[in-house]
Amino acid sequence: MVITMKPGATEEQIQAVCSTIEEYGLDTLLMPGSVMAIGIPSAIPADVREPLAQKLQILPGVSQVTHVSRSYKLASREFHPASTVVNVRGVHIGGTDFVVMAGPCSIEGYEQLSEAAKEVRAAGALVLRGGAFKPRTSPYSFQGLAVEGLKIMRQVADEVGILTVSEVMSPDLVETVAEYVDILQIGARSMQNLPLLIEAGKSGKPVLLKRGPAATIDEFLLAAEYILSNGNSNVMLCERGLVSFDRSYTRNLLDLAAVQVLKDHSHLPVIVDPSHGVGVAKYIPAMSCAALVAGADGLLIEVHPDPRRAMSDAAQTLDTKTFAELMESLRRLGPFSKRSICEQAIAV
Amino acid sequence: MVITMKPGATEEQIQAVCSTIEEYGLDTLLMPGSVMAIGIPSAIPADVREPLAQKLQILPGVSQVTHVSRSYKLASREFHPASTVVNVRGVHIGGTDFVVMAGPCSIEGYEQLSEAAKEVRAAGALVLRGGAFKPRTSPYSFQGLAVEGLKIMRQVADEVGILTVSEVMSPDLVETVAEYVDILQIGARSMQNLPLLIEAGKSGKPVLLKRGPAATIDEFLLAAEYILSNGNSNVMLCERGLVSFDRSYTRNLLDLAAVQVLKDHSHLPVIVDPSHGVGVAKYIPAMSCAALVAGADGLLIEVHPDPRRAMSDAAQTLDTKTFAELMESLRRLGPFSKRSICEQAIAV
Amino acid sequence: MVITMKPGATEEQIQAVCSTIEEYGLDTLLMPGSVMAIGIPSAIPADVREPLAQKLQILPGVSQVTHVSRSYKLASREFHPASTVVNVRGVHIGGTDFVVMAGPCSIEGYEQLSEAAKEVRAAGALVLRGGAFKPRTSPYSFQGLAVEGLKIMRQVADEVGILTVSEVMSPDLVETVAEYVDILQIGARSMQNLPLLIEAGKSGKPVLLKRGPAATIDEFLLAAEYILSNGNSNVMLCERGLVSFDRSYTRNLLDLAAVQVLKDHSHLPVIVDPSHGVGVAKYIPAMSCAALVAGADGLLIEVHPDPRRAMSDAAQTLDTKTFAELMESLRRLGPFSKRSICEQAIAV
Amino acid sequence: MVITMKPGATEEQIQAVCSTIEEYGLDTLLMPGSVMAIGIPSAIPADVREPLAQKLQILPGVSQVTHVSRSYKLASREFHPASTVVNVRGVHIGGTDFVVMAGPCSIEGYEQLSEAAKEVRAAGALVLRGGAFKPRTSPYSFQGLAVEGLKIMRQVADEVGILTVSEVMSPDLVETVAEYVDILQIGARSMQNLPLLIEAGKSGKPVLLKRGPAATIDEFLLAAEYILSNGNSNVMLCERGLVSFDRSYTRNLLDLAAVQVLKDHSHLPVIVDPSHGVGVAKYIPAMSCAALVAGADGLLIEVHPDPRRAMSDAAQTLDTKTFAELMESLRRLGPFSKRSICEQAIAV
Repeated sequence: MVITMKPGATEEQIQAVCSTIEEYGLDTLLMPGSVMAIGIPSAIPADVREPLAQKLQILPGVSQVTHVSRSYKLASREFHPASTVVNVRGVHIGGTDFVVMAGPCSIEGYEQLSEAAKEVRAAGALVLRGGAFKPRTSPYSFQGLAVEGLKIMRQVADEVGILTVSEVMSPDLVETVAEYVDILQIGARSMQNLPLLIEAGKSGKPVLLKRGPAATIDEFLLAAEYILSNGNSNVMLCERGLVSFDRSYTRNLLDLAAVQVLKDHSHLPVIVDPSHGVGVAKYIPAMSCAALVAGADGLLIEVHPDPRRAMSDAAQTLDTKTFAELMESLRRLGPFSKRSICEQAIAV
Repeated sequence: MVITMKPGATEEQIQAVCSTIEEYGLDTLLMPGSVMAIGIPSAIPADVREPLAQKLQILPGVSQVTHVSRSYKLASREFHPASTVVNVRGVHIGGTDFVVMAGPCSIEGYEQLSEAAKEVRAAGALVLRGGAFKPRTSPYSFQGLAVEGLKIMRQVADEVGILTVSEVMSPDLVETVAEYVDILQIGARSMQNLPLLIEAGKSGKPVLLKRGPAATIDEFLLAAEYILSNGNSNVMLCERGLVSFDRSYTRNLLDLAAVQVLKDHSHLPVIVDPSHGVGVAKYIPAMSCAALVAGADGLLIEVHPDPRRAMSDAAQTLDTKTFAELMESLRRLGPFSKRSICEQAIAV
Repeated sequence: MVITMKPGATEEQIQAVCSTIEEYGLDTLLMPGSVMAIGIPSAIPADVREPLAQKLQILPGVSQVTHVSRSYKLASREFHPASTVVNVRGVHIGGTDFVVMAGPCSIEGYEQLSEAAKEVRAAGALVLRGGAFKPRTSPYSFQGLAVEGLKIMRQVADEVGILTVSEVMSPDLVETVAEYVDILQIGARSMQNLPLLIEAGKSGKPVLLKRGPAATIDEFLLAAEYILSNGNSNVMLCERGLVSFDRSYTRNLLDLAAVQVLKDHSHLPVIVDPSHGVGVAKYIPAMSCAALVAGADGLLIEVHPDPRRAMSDAAQTLDTKTFAELMESLRRLGPFSKRSICEQAIAV
Repeated sequence: MVITMKPGATEEQIQAVCSTIEEYGLDTLLMPGSVMAIGIPSAIPADVREPLAQKLQILPGVSQVTHVSRSYKLASREFHPASTVVNVRGVHIGGTDFVVMAGPCSIEGYEQLSEAAKEVRAAGALVLRGGAFKPRTSPYSFQGLAVEGLKIMRQVADEVGILTVSEVMSPDLVETVAEYVDILQIGARSMQNLPLLIEAGKSGKPVLLKRGPAATIDEFLLAAEYILSNGNSNVMLCERGLVSFDRSYTRNLLDLAAVQVLKDHSHLPVIVDPSHGVGVAKYIPAMSCAALVAGADGLLIEVHPDPRRAMSDAAQTLDTKTFAELMESLRRLGPFSKRSICEQAIAV
């Protein structure tokens, strides 16, 4: 942390800054120059960082308080140089395999999910997605089949031989959802639902954490830090599009450069969700391929046997034929990024 | 809803659009012109609106699907022209009174809260704010005193004669928090925590719903709709600043025009939180006065007996002396906006 | 500037950073600690700041380069503590007077402008606004009367006894526009039109510089710096609304806290344009009053004798009656902010 | 255009809406339903669209005015289904060739530019980029060599056999810049510099139009429309990153989905500038490849023989070796997107 004083700051004001820092047991280093700056050379404990900065900002004579280190630790590649590979029942995410998760927005019933699961598995997906608890913006939209949906999902997955991912929206449901699915999804709207992050951390289950639509990279990695610091290192990050000033043509603004940033600053695997990222079915194959080339470790895609019949998200859902063609493209493209599209069998 | 076809759309494509609409039991109205447009003249049931739009968007020949009505109903002034006045134990919010809620960011202990409560009450605040469960971006920050904090708050409030507002972060805690406080606060990060909104709705308690930092007006009013549609009409909206591309000088971007928009399109009371809205103590008095003039029904302000000792949010916290001066300003300014600063006694 | 090294940076890498800095004739100060940081204690020349930062960022072992001082100088209050008062033919902007500029979006002809000028003058405006060169988003919109419009404006202003402000869009037209109007307006789309800023600087004319819809405070003040550093200290800053993720209800997102920030960090006068700031006529009176209370030095408002006949911006234009009522409100509100609505005569 | 009335709108109010529309010679179509809506079935002339919408919005009883067609015409693929291929002295941009434009941020002198040109040409670039007039945010930054720089560029290009692109910032300089370069670049800050767009239109020269950092797709295509409607069909669109709420890790937010949107809704070629798009050299190769896969027609990349010596933009500039490796990657990737990296000779 560096504290810059205003031009003309007095000796007393500088002293007050130093005292405030020293009260926390930290050293100070004076940097006299065109204006006086005060550095803190030692490592600042994580729980001191923010309250100290807040207090310094209001001291007389202080011009600016500048953080010179990142606020996340466990999620940072600086302190954990090797990439984390999350092992989900034998499927490895974050290494050289490229893993595709696909399925309908909502679990609508056994027939629909079974058909979807068979088709996405045949095309090469290793994880079946599908919502049982649906976080809908409007209270008048379909809210999902809840636990009944999870049971259907478990049955279908076991029959087809595929892993599963489904969203959990509430801390008291973590245990229940963890019982039925292989990967807990924490949705974009829940990225800073801290009680939920803590429970997901305690569960030890693999977690797919979606980036909030207005979350900075730091806020995203601090949300992951909540899970990691509760003892769960099986965290995958998911970029799914940001809020934008232009909503005329796409639903969100997909931030593919975030894949590079996240892989650079964190060791955690990065998944891209182009379905929510753009929200328009016809743009999804190209953006999926671009995500692979941009360095992603996998994809999360909405696929439905008949999008025209889908109870939600029809406009951004691929039909199974288009999805199979996309998987072909990814297979051809994989070697370019030194990736292979993982095709292994799942032990039931 | 109006569906515009592409130039050269075929008869068959137009027919497919009409059939899709009619499957939902809705009528269609053809609008031939430079391009063909298809209107739906009848009211579209709330649960049909979104899935229908999604399905129409992917039909061949469709250029654009345009909503011509708002998606919220219970929160809308169109269907509820009179302003809602929320009655919290005799204090009326949303009418001619202007109600100020003030207190520390976090409840740190009995001494601190008691001193804060006495001073803000003496200055004219009618509601004591203070966090017991703290939603912190970093897991390493102070997380609050939890239920212990709520008990302290209840005791202090009863001693001082002041109402209370405190945040609830999790649906399973709604009942507990509702037992101790007079107004449930739903934080900005929780605005779309739907299980929480539903529980807050069922509780019937007055709710202060904060706008998410990237929430549109429609999303904000739909979040209120979740509470309203679960049987609770005691909802207050709180503008607290939006995410911005410029974070060098202020923490958030306070949207004071939203006060006008919300009062125009909804009947619910609107409170402004300038503390989080700007995040810099010295700008808060002016923005508080501007909020009153912009039409707000009240304020939510962070005040601490000694901000330099505050465990959180020190930089945006007013000391009690500055707060008392601000209350004086508001009292002088009130008549200009045909408001009086509510000063009544609170029955314990 | 502070350069933070990565954990494990080598002696050689640290040395390379120091050498790069010293090549610019600057000293370095080592700050050993949990990680090594390198400070530059002396003032960095303005033209070195950015290229040096760019070069340091790419050196091996460098984690972060942090600016600890602002990039603008002439616009900064740090080096010019007294508020600048711009004198436009005897009208003082930036002191205790509150100055209102009003008139139609476009100059449509003598009759329209003359009627508008008389009415806004009678109501208390001291400056007539009106566009002769119109920057329209679409090439198919009305583009203005050009020099013919300026001549009409000059004639009307002299007849009525009012100052004038009108936009100049191109550096080669600065001289022409400056001949006819009292204040040159630089529009939001032109905020970083650098040749235009330079010409406006050389002209010496009072300049009203509008903030770009996505300009940070730093970019805004650096744009002002272009005018100031070309010898023109008569610069007024104008906040007129920012780009937003929500365009359903307002045209832009008015940033009233920017008034506080700009007055705090710069000595230049600050004008608010609520017409473009919100874009909805019925919200403009309240936002105008809020701007005064927030600390603005004046307003820029679109007023038309008959908005329903306006050739542009009808939806955000006040009629003259509403404008006169607003001026009454401002007069009553002025003393609250220690301002008087300036009413002096203009020498023709 | 569809005008939705408020519930309870009167006959008179509906009649006033119809009259206002009919004054422009347009027909109306009543759509009675749950609320009354009024459609305009005929094509609305481009110059009427905006003023009419503005006037209707302020009529009593009107709830909402909704555009159901896009505001651009000449740039739209609806009216021009075939993709435009811009022919720059025999190099075709917008067809099956993928064209790379590369070179330094600023032209610093003959030696630097000549070395850069030879190396990027040898690696496979067909167009040399380099700024002679530099639009710098700060007046204290290097402003470029101006016409002297253009002369150097022309000489170098002729010696090396490469096309050139350079920015023009002012309408009065279009003719001069057009004399020396093959492609006029209009910078992001100038996207709505309308006098400049008009001059660029009149010049007939190929134009590379950069998207403003906060420009919507509609605003971007309307800016292109200014050039097209002034008689110049040789327009290339360039995505170069958007303003974002997170500036900690990248300079801008690259919108790669915009490539898909622009190719879908417009017939104009689309170029991606990953250098400004992300602003961090090490992320640029991956984002360049992603741009190709996302459907772009070419790239604009900053390359310098020695980035550590670059006078501007060092942090986002590739060295020539990394650039040559990137060209190799693009060559391998090209067939995947049915593109070939254009390698033809340039006639001098």
